[in-house]
Amino acid sequence: MSKIKIGIIGAGRIGKIHADNMLRASKVEIVAISDLYAGDELQEWAEARGIATVTRDSEAILSDPDIDAVIICSSTDTHVPLIKRAAQQGKHIFCEKPISMDVRLTEEALEEVRKAGVQLQVGFNRRFDHNFKRVREHVRAGAIGEPQVVKITSRDPSPPPEEYIKVSGGIFIDMMIHDFDMARFLSGSEVEEVYAQGSVLVDPVFAEHGDVDTAIVSLRFENGAIGVIDCSRKAVYGYDQRAEVFGSKGAVSAANDFPSTAVLSTENGVWSDKPLHFFLERYNQAYIEETELFIDCLSNGKPVPVDGQDGRQAERIALAAKLSHQLRRPVKLTEIEELRKGV
Amino acid sequence: MSKIKIGIIGAGRIGKIHADNMLRASKVEIVAISDLYAGDELQEWAEARGIATVTRDSEAILSDPDIDAVIICSSTDTHVPLIKRAAQQGKHIFCEKPISMDVRLTEEALEEVRKAGVQLQVGFNRRFDHNFKRVREHVRAGAIGEPQVVKITSRDPSPPPEEYIKVSGGIFIDMMIHDFDMARFLSGSEVEEVYAQGSVLVDPVFAEHGDVDTAIVSLRFENGAIGVIDCSRKAVYGYDQRAEVFGSKGAVSAANDFPSTAVLSTENGVWSDKPLHFFLERYNQAYIEETELFIDCLSNGKPVPVDGQDGRQAERIALAAKLSHQLRRPVKLTEIEELRKGV
Amino acid sequence: MSKIKIGIIGAGRIGKIHADNMLRASKVEIVAISDLYAGDELQEWAEARGIATVTRDSEAILSDPDIDAVIICSSTDTHVPLIKRAAQQGKHIFCEKPISMDVRLTEEALEEVRKAGVQLQVGFNRRFDHNFKRVREHVRAGAIGEPQVVKITSRDPSPPPEEYIKVSGGIFIDMMIHDFDMARFLSGSEVEEVYAQGSVLVDPVFAEHGDVDTAIVSLRFENGAIGVIDCSRKAVYGYDQRAEVFGSKGAVSAANDFPSTAVLSTENGVWSDKPLHFFLERYNQAYIEETELFIDCLSNGKPVPVDGQDGRQAERIALAAKLSHQLRRPVKLTEIEELRKGV
Amino acid sequence: MSKIKIGIIGAGRIGKIHADNMLRASKVEIVAISDLYAGDELQEWAEARGIATVTRDSEAILSDPDIDAVIICSSTDTHVPLIKRAAQQGKHIFCEKPISMDVRLTEEALEEVRKAGVQLQVGFNRRFDHNFKRVREHVRAGAIGEPQVVKITSRDPSPPPEEYIKVSGGIFIDMMIHDFDMARFLSGSEVEEVYAQGSVLVDPVFAEHGDVDTAIVSLRFENGAIGVIDCSRKAVYGYDQRAEVFGSKGAVSAANDFPSTAVLSTENGVWSDKPLHFFLERYNQAYIEETELFIDCLSNGKPVPVDGQDGRQAERIALAAKLSHQLRRPVKLTEIEELRKGV
Repeated sequence: MSKIKIGIIGAGRIGKIHADNMLRASKVEIVAISDLYAGDELQEWAEARGIATVTRDSEAILSDPDIDAVIICSSTDTHVPLIKRAAQQGKHIFCEKPISMDVRLTEEALEEVRKAGVQLQVGFNRRFDHNFKRVREHVRAGAIGEPQVVKITSRDPSPPPEEYIKVSGGIFIDMMIHDFDMARFLSGSEVEEVYAQGSVLVDPVFAEHGDVDTAIVSLRFENGAIGVIDCSRKAVYGYDQRAEVFGSKGAVSAANDFPSTAVLSTENGVWSDKPLHFFLERYNQAYIEETELFIDCLSNGKPVPVDGQDGRQAERIALAAKLSHQLRRPVKLTEIEELRKGV
Repeated sequence: MSKIKIGIIGAGRIGKIHADNMLRASKVEIVAISDLYAGDELQEWAEARGIATVTRDSEAILSDPDIDAVIICSSTDTHVPLIKRAAQQGKHIFCEKPISMDVRLTEEALEEVRKAGVQLQVGFNRRFDHNFKRVREHVRAGAIGEPQVVKITSRDPSPPPEEYIKVSGGIFIDMMIHDFDMARFLSGSEVEEVYAQGSVLVDPVFAEHGDVDTAIVSLRFENGAIGVIDCSRKAVYGYDQRAEVFGSKGAVSAANDFPSTAVLSTENGVWSDKPLHFFLERYNQAYIEETELFIDCLSNGKPVPVDGQDGRQAERIALAAKLSHQLRRPVKLTEIEELRKGV
Repeated sequence: MSKIKIGIIGAGRIGKIHADNMLRASKVEIVAISDLYAGDELQEWAEARGIATVTRDSEAILSDPDIDAVIICSSTDTHVPLIKRAAQQGKHIFCEKPISMDVRLTEEALEEVRKAGVQLQVGFNRRFDHNFKRVREHVRAGAIGEPQVVKITSRDPSPPPEEYIKVSGGIFIDMMIHDFDMARFLSGSEVEEVYAQGSVLVDPVFAEHGDVDTAIVSLRFENGAIGVIDCSRKAVYGYDQRAEVFGSKGAVSAANDFPSTAVLSTENGVWSDKPLHFFLERYNQAYIEETELFIDCLSNGKPVPVDGQDGRQAERIALAAKLSHQLRRPVKLTEIEELRKGV
Repeated sequence: MSKIKIGIIGAGRIGKIHADNMLRASKVEIVAISDLYAGDELQEWAEARGIATVTRDSEAILSDPDIDAVIICSSTDTHVPLIKRAAQQGKHIFCEKPISMDVRLTEEALEEVRKAGVQLQVGFNRRFDHNFKRVREHVRAGAIGEPQVVKITSRDPSPPPEEYIKVSGGIFIDMMIHDFDMARFLSGSEVEEVYAQGSVLVDPVFAEHGDVDTAIVSLRFENGAIGVIDCSRKAVYGYDQRAEVFGSKGAVSAANDFPSTAVLSTENGVWSDKPLHFFLERYNQAYIEETELFIDCLSNGKPVPVDGQDGRQAERIALAAKLSHQLRRPVKLTEIEELRKGV
């Protein structure tokens, strides 16, 4: 079987991680990588991995007929044009989340993907996390009966720099989009309505950019279940990622992850490790698995595990949450098109 | 030092538990117990404990000049008149929660208590639970810095009978009033606004009585913190009572309680005990402690640890939650007087 | 049904605890308490509990024909004569562990008990601990198949005073006798051979009295299983009591006990409570249950749950362990009679 | 900096794992791999990794002047001659455990290594496990004061095939050698004396080959500490690897490892995942780290983290344990040379 030829667009941290993870798989050949700021360092990095082409021009990748699939890890504003172009060129696509910050643009991109008949996987890596995957398996197997309450906790160890905050799209889109996807994934149901509460408790810089740093979003699902996500930009003890689904026959929950099980007991108390520091440590294995599955699906002609509709739905929930916070009232997903005209 | 003489009004399960718990303290003498349905069984029960008077008439207790304090464990609708009468007779009062289902009546009762200069403790027993007390200690000591997010999970093992549901006042008042008090207790701040989502997922009988069986209530506190309580009438695995406070310097959380630490590992997985069944098992020691502290405060002229204002505030939050659920929008506590006119 | 009339011999801490625990049961009347140093304080203590007779002379209890059962909580050297005398007087007996420090004397006492046809319960309270009881239930139910390895950890928070060490009989008899009983209880098998290693690591005062403060005892059971107990006089973090039974179909283990489930996460790590301080806190409920069961068995003519043979066997294992440590070699229980001649 | 050139001897499972792990490091080039049964499959495997030479003759590697270091993963009986030859050729050596089953042969190999001035790392991979490493860090940092008791649990999910049992050297050498090394590693002290108890409880086939399948080994350390290791060839619930060090200022323990933190609560109890299946899953990351450190030490001229003396000492303890089990008495390490003459 011939190898799948991959081009990577965007050589930032996550682009390089995806590259290294895919190089572990024998079915893949990375033939090119592009980055707006490509230079000697990237050249060297690519050579050490046998990646032949390093370019500043993503079009060199998009128009290369030998390339089967592209991995889009460039900045969010470039995702939609890149997806469209890649689809038109008949390439399969793995795109980092979110597809865009504008649901209408996302829908345009998805339409192009649909027309081209290519596959599009969105980088909701947390679905491949060992803990959340196991929660989902229990739910799917019916172990908890009908899901009734979904709870997600999502806290970063420290806020991003102001430069990033400015362009991030805000906590509901930038950070919680992962959690909105997780809510759909764990419950197996669509979100119907959200109510978002936000506060600026960590750093006034968030207020300066019309953003919040702490939020609680209540959810109502189509199947009648309800849910809640609590989110903070700063947990001093480290990354905190937990979930729970409660149902008619039981509950399943996933605790946070820690670097070791070591417990120290002294006169002053019982002490254990802080959580794994941040997403690279926590989701290391999940990143590997999501790209492995992407490649595997392309190789075997199976549909990818997280597709464009998943990307779009999470964006719609995020938008509803943002509107709810602005309007200080619950917002239905069916309202968002109407509401956006006014805000 | 002479003993404090106690009369108990209402000889149901909780009245008897309070009696037995107080009999463990050497500073107390229970001189009378009244119950509408007092009969031979109660007579025998009282004799075994050296309680001299058993009566169907609570007034026999309220007008007895030898009695220093009354423990009100009768049905909720009797609380307000009994408190008023006890206060007028100069007796200290321990009253089960809620004081009433009508904040205005509660306020009338508190006014009487204030005028009489007696003490009134409300039976928010969970404040004395070993786990929640420890969470509060950490918060109070500043171990987590400024509280930012408060989370409470509250699930009963099975719903009450329909007869009870009818007159319960609904999940927000009957069940969640404990959780609203816990939110104030743990955060050390007042609740300002609530948004309540409810669903009927356990049993349609709740819908028949205009009630829900599953709820998520989002909270906004005066100090800017936000919070969320999730609540269910039926957790098949048993009673589930947890809390977490997240703040600027850390987080403190209390897991559920279990009858043993035994863990069984077999080919089929790792198995441990279900939680303690229900509130009598879980809060056994907390019930002891709340009455001990009540007696101790009376003996030493100290203010009781949970007073009438605590009772009133929890009722106001419960009412706001109920209104929020009806109106499907967030409700501020300052709105409730106005809103009640319309519903 | 008439109440069982109890006399308590020895009014130290544990005697008073047993008294208070039995007073909770309605089937019991404590009619007398004796103590060599009985004075005003004990008199007052007894009056508050309605105990009519306080005496310095245990014979006043032993010869009282109204007394059905005696609770022996006096010093270990008095146990054997008191048991013999109580048995001769036809009284049932609850005796604190150990029956004696000399297996031959213990056997004489048991012979007297046998002849009198009275019941004798030995105070191995840990068998009634919620955790260990649950471990035993799993083993008994066959959940782990055939037991193969038994592991017990037993650590005190701090060593006893030198005065006590001198007369304690040494760590193997004084402290580990509980663990030897636990090994038999959990495995459901008799111990056949032991090998004891001891060290003086906590305080040289133990060496001065021919004792050790830290020990590991390996066990071989009649059913082929093997086991190990590790023991220390001083765990600075508090009382540490754990057990594990590993078998052909799985393993069951009981972790230590803690005052709360609260967990504090900060920049410096994740902290939780130290264990319950010592045996009074840890075994509070087990003490209640062992006397309840004693009374219940007497009331219903059932055999007591821990009898004289259990007392004797634990003493034989302790003796074998002591000899093993002295001889620096494994010792079979069948050897102890022979070996004692030489040491 | 030029890359370190590596030759791998023995292309079984562990040889291939080491190869793949080293290929992740950019400082390494694997130039050759040898295996007695090398064929097309290995050829293909090597090509996919850019390993130029595949041979059946280890001498082709040992005599290649371009190779800096060899990784010895062939059968145990080949270790000593390969180490000697590699040392004579001036190559650094990474050798799987044990160096041999005969301490005298091991010592001969070490002497050759010493003379050649090359480095020898022994494959005690568990020292690099995230949990045990953290335990060691706490001990080394003095967090528990002076170590007093060391406890290790080591259980395999299922016994090896009979063919392997025959030549394994027995449980004390084959399986527990890792635990003996761990005892030295965690305590930071040498073992002075051991007492080993063994039983055949899993499968009579062990008895047929003079072996046991279940063992408890008590240890005495030079610094006065004592320890115990319990070991089983078959834990039906999966691999079980735990350790604890108890000392004058506290204790540190490492629990077992599990594939997820997911917990399922139902009417029938609370369930969580079985442990990680076996050593490949559990020590996956530890294998990576041990070879990374080996390469790093060679690159930077630092001494390797686990050397030949570590290999030799673990073998001496294993031998003492085997002798102790045969003689049914404690054995000092200083006795083994004398004792071996007689057995």
